[in-house]
Parts: sequence; structure tokens; C-alpha cells
Amino acid sequence: MHTDLVAALDIGGTKIAGALVDGDGRIHARAQRPTPAQEAGDTVMGAVEAVLAELTASPLWGRATAVGIGSAGPVDASAGTVSPVNVPGWRDYPLVRRVRDAVGDLPVELIGDGVAITAAEHWQGAARGHDNALCMVVSTGVGGGLVLGGRLHPGPTGNSGHIGHISVDLDGDPCPCGARGCVERIASGPNIARRALDAGWRPGPDGDTSAAAVAAAARLGDPVAVASFERAAQALAAGIAATATLVEIDIAVVGGGVGKAGDVLFTPLRKALTDYATLSFVQRLVVVPAQMGTDAGLVGAAAAALTKAPGARPAHV
Amino acid sequence: MHTDLVAALDIGGTKIAGALVDGDGRIHARAQRPTPAQEAGDTVMGAVEAVLAELTASPLWGRATAVGIGSAGPVDASAGTVSPVNVPGWRDYPLVRRVRDAVGDLPVELIGDGVAITAAEHWQGAARGHDNALCMVVSTGVGGGLVLGGRLHPGPTGNSGHIGHISVDLDGDPCPCGARGCVERIASGPNIARRALDAGWRPGPDGDTSAAAVAAAARLGDPVAVASFERAAQALAAGIAATATLVEIDIAVVGGGVGKAGDVLFTPLRKALTDYATLSFVQRLVVVPAQMGTDAGLVGAAAAALTKAPGARPAHV
Repeated sequence: MHTDLVAALDIGGTKIAGALVDGDGRIHARAQRPTPAQEAGDTVMGAVEAVLAELTASPLWGRATAVGIGSAGPVDASAGTVSPVNVPGWRDYPLVRRVRDAVGDLPVELIGDGVAITAAEHWQGAARGHDNALCMVVSTGVGGGLVLGGRLHPGPTGNSGHIGHISVDLDGDPCPCGARGCVERIASGPNIARRALDAGWRPGPDGDTSAAAVAAAARLGDPVAVASFERAAQALAAGIAATATLVEIDIAVVGGGVGKAGDVLFTPLRKALTDYATLSFVQRLVVVPAQMGTDAGLVGAAAAALTKAPGARPAHV
Repeated sequence: MHTDLVAALDIGGTKIAGALVDGDGRIHARAQRPTPAQEAGDTVMGAVEAVLAELTASPLWGRATAVGIGSAGPVDASAGTVSPVNVPGWRDYPLVRRVRDAVGDLPVELIGDGVAITAAEHWQGAARGHDNALCMVVSTGVGGGLVLGGRLHPGPTGNSGHIGHISVDLDGDPCPCGARGCVERIASGPNIARRALDAGWRPGPDGDTSAAAVAAAARLGDPVAVASFERAAQALAAGIAATATLVEIDIAVVGGGVGKAGDVLFTPLRKALTDYATLSFVQRLVVVPAQMGTDAGLVGAAAAALTKAPGARPAHV
């Protein structure tokens, strides 16, 4: 039995969540604030400090041995800074130092949000027991993280597994990142919806033009909606196959809103994987839906913190 | 000073080379045979055994503590078998067991040839001192290997870093591997030459239609030859950027015959990298020519063997 706890922070463009988490991944205390994403950097930090103040006021705080932060990226774990695309007030913002100031001298571990989700799926979810895994979030954006050789692989700056911005179509459409034909440019929810609309799909009476609405139409057999998901699946398959060919993963876990589309996504995805994952050593690769829920970011940040708190190291992380 | 030696084997489609190598990477004895690549599997093994017989007959053999094998791939290090594309008599061939039978009970380490080259560049060449590196051979095929977190990363089956067969053009030309638009399909020497010929380039009086001849024409300003190298550079850049985005490498080392083309390749390659390596954490990525010569495969196989012979572990491997 572990008696130590870690503090976990999950920082996104919409909300800042915090929790005290034990060595089995159970959450014992929570705090949350909306992210004032368009405000000045110190105002955003104020929301983080309010979450931390609630946690440090908990009678359980004295058992906390480390802090784990999963943040929207890019992050720079080596410098302890973050520059989330959707939080313009934070550019090279010294988040680790500011959190350390707020909590005293606990060790603080910073990772990207895709890496945090991966830590959670590896510890408690669909990648459990797999030594080499890619976990992805396919949603408004496409993010991810890697487990290699049985351990989380954040990379030197905490951004490894950033599959959304690898190019699978080198002459393809320009991506906001500056490159062309990135996986995210083809497979994200907004791009699935845009492609369906461009090809003539029209929403129902509720006017819902989300990727979820396109998925619903695809389930009813609308060929334009089906084709848009097939194209997303093809790009995801090329990206997953590239990852497997480069680092020998044997499982890819797909979560996020688009990941919830079910067979409309997974059937063409598995078919396309056989087209792109061709070498002998990647043919056993499987692709499965994510298992972790809305607490995945917190649980993953906790897993990262536990690696800094040796007394409470979780299995498989 | 290290007094132990390791035996190294470099097995390719043309020759089988062997050596006794010390802990500083110096070669003390050599043996070599042509690869009877189109013969039966046991005939090919006979050539390996002849190389090993020469080495074991050396007065230095008694100091050998391990055997490292770098083989044309695919390999399966977990099973100890190899299936080199250009050696049809070897399919799931139990190379590790057969080598162990020939040398007694020394530990035997098997890696792919791209991984072996990487071990050599990391130990003694252009990737020395880099904790996260991709090393590539761009030649008749395109192979590679990875150093992650300061250590060689062969992956579970010894094939990691297989950048030649990631797709950077998901709707592109069919590749012999079964996928489409692979890096090798665009950037290998034969594909550089084919593309130049298809676009109207004609060889000189010597009739040389190799990629080296196209490189020579490009250096003289032939626009078709220049364009073929630029397209190869674009595909290599997309693949290198994908690798950096997935695992945060900070250097890419390019060797092999095409890598020897010099500025004709590296100038457009560095330019294209700025198009595809766009995220903050990959912008410091540099690409440089390989430094190791024809012994790279042997030195890399030795480096892998030294990881199994703790008394003689090389620095950085």
C-alpha cells in the first residue's frame, strides 16, 4: 500500500484542473478553474495558483511528495516553460518555477498533454501491459505520446509523440504549423467536418456541423460523410504506420472526440493500416480505442509525478 | 585501457565481413567472403562460418567476449532470425543460433544494418555526443537507426529507425514494400536516377545512369538533375522532420552513396527541413553528412556486442 500522494495539474485552453492522487491512480481531492485563456500571462497563472491554493489547503496536502503537470503544448520540459498555442499570454512562460514557488520545494515534473494522456493509458487504460505504444488524442487537434521499452518517453523537452504534425502528404494542404499535409490537417475533427461540407454534405435541422454530426451521418450510410472519415483514417494510418516503422510500437490507442466515432473511424483505420504498415516487424500492430475518461490528463500528470517520487512509483510507468 | 575484444559481423547482400574489435573501436583482425546471395540458406551460412573460422583461428580470439552482428534486414532480434530482402535463401533464418554454434557460448547480439551504422556514427562519428539522433544510409535503399536518451534504440526486433519505409506521400507511387510514397521510393539512388531519366536527363558518353552521374550533372547546373535531387531532399526532409517530431532527435546524419552527393543534396535538404520541421522543439535540428567509412557496419556491430560485454562498454553506446 502507498500512503504518499502526488499533486497533479491538467492545464488546457478551457480549464485548469488539479487533484491529489495516490499511487494507485485514485483521486482524493480536486480543484478546478476556467482558463482565462485570452488574458495576460500572470492572470492565467493566477488561476493555476487558485487551484493549487485549494489543494494545499487540503488536510491531505502534507502527504504530497511531488507535483506533475500536463500542459497544452508546446512545452519545454528542459527549461520548465510552456507556450500553449491557445494561451497567447504564455510564451516561454516559466510555469515550473511559478508552481514551485506556490508549493514549496517539492519536485515538479512537466510534460505535454499528449504525453500525459499516454502515461494514463499506459498505467490504467488501453495500453496497460504494452512496452511500446503510441497513444493519440484526435479531437480539435491531434496529439499523442509514446511508451518505449516499457517506460513513458517524453523526450528532452516533453513533446515526443507529436504525431499531429508529421507530414503524410508532402505536397498537401498548408497546415497552420507551417508545414504541409500534416496528420492533423487531414484527420482532426474540424478538418473531417470541413471536408464533408466542401464535398456537399449538409447538416440536419439542428445545424450541427461538428465531426460528431458527420460521424452520425456516416453511420446512416451518407457516402460523403463516410468518405471524409475514410480520408481521416488513411492519414491516421499513415502516421501510425510511420511511428511503428520508426520505433516499433505494437499498439496504437486512439482517443479524443473523433476517437469516439467508433466503427465509422476504426473500420477504415484498421483497413488502411494494412496498406501502410507493411514491413514484417510492424504487421502485428493493433489499433484500439482509448479507455481513460475525462480524468486522463490528471491521472497521467500524476503518473509523471510518481516517477519523481520513488516511494510511490506506479507499475508500468 | 580495455584488453577485451569483441567479434563483429557485417552481413550484406554483397559481402560478409568479420573483425575482432577492441573497446576503442580499433580493428585487430579481419576476414571477408562474398555473399552467395542467390544460393540456399545453408550455403550462405557456410560463408559466414568461413569468416568466423578465420577469426576463431586468430591468436587474439581468446580475448573475444561477445559477438555483434549487423545484418541486412528485416531482422528479428527477439527471435534471433533474419530475412534479408536480397538473400532469398534466408527467411526467418536462425542466424543467432547458428553463429553461437560456431563460436561456443559467447553472447551474441543481433541488430539491423541501419542500427549498426547508427551505433558506429554515435560511438565514433558524426553523432558523437548527441543523445538523440537519427542516422541514415541513403543508397540503393534507405535505412536508418535511432539513438534515444543517449543510448542506441534498436527496438524489440532490432529494426527501429527504418525511415526508408515511412510514407511521406500517402497517395504516392506504389513502393515494393506494399505501401505508397515511402521515403525510399522517392529518395533512393535508383529513384533519383529514374526520375531524372523520365524527365529527360541523358547520361554522358560513358552511359553512366547512376545517381552519382545525376549528382555530377546537377553540380554542373543541369536543371532536371537538380530537380530530381530537390525532390529526394524534400522526401528526406519530410521523413527526418517526422522523426524529430515523434522522438525529438536533434541531429540527422546522412550517409550512403547518395549522402556523398554533397551540396547537391544537403543544400536543398536543409532548405526543405525548414518547411517541415516547424514546431518549436524541432527547430534546432541539424543535418550533417556521415563520417564513418566502409568499416561503419563492423564498428557498429562491435558497439552492439560491447553492450553485452560489460567490461568493455564503449562510451556513448
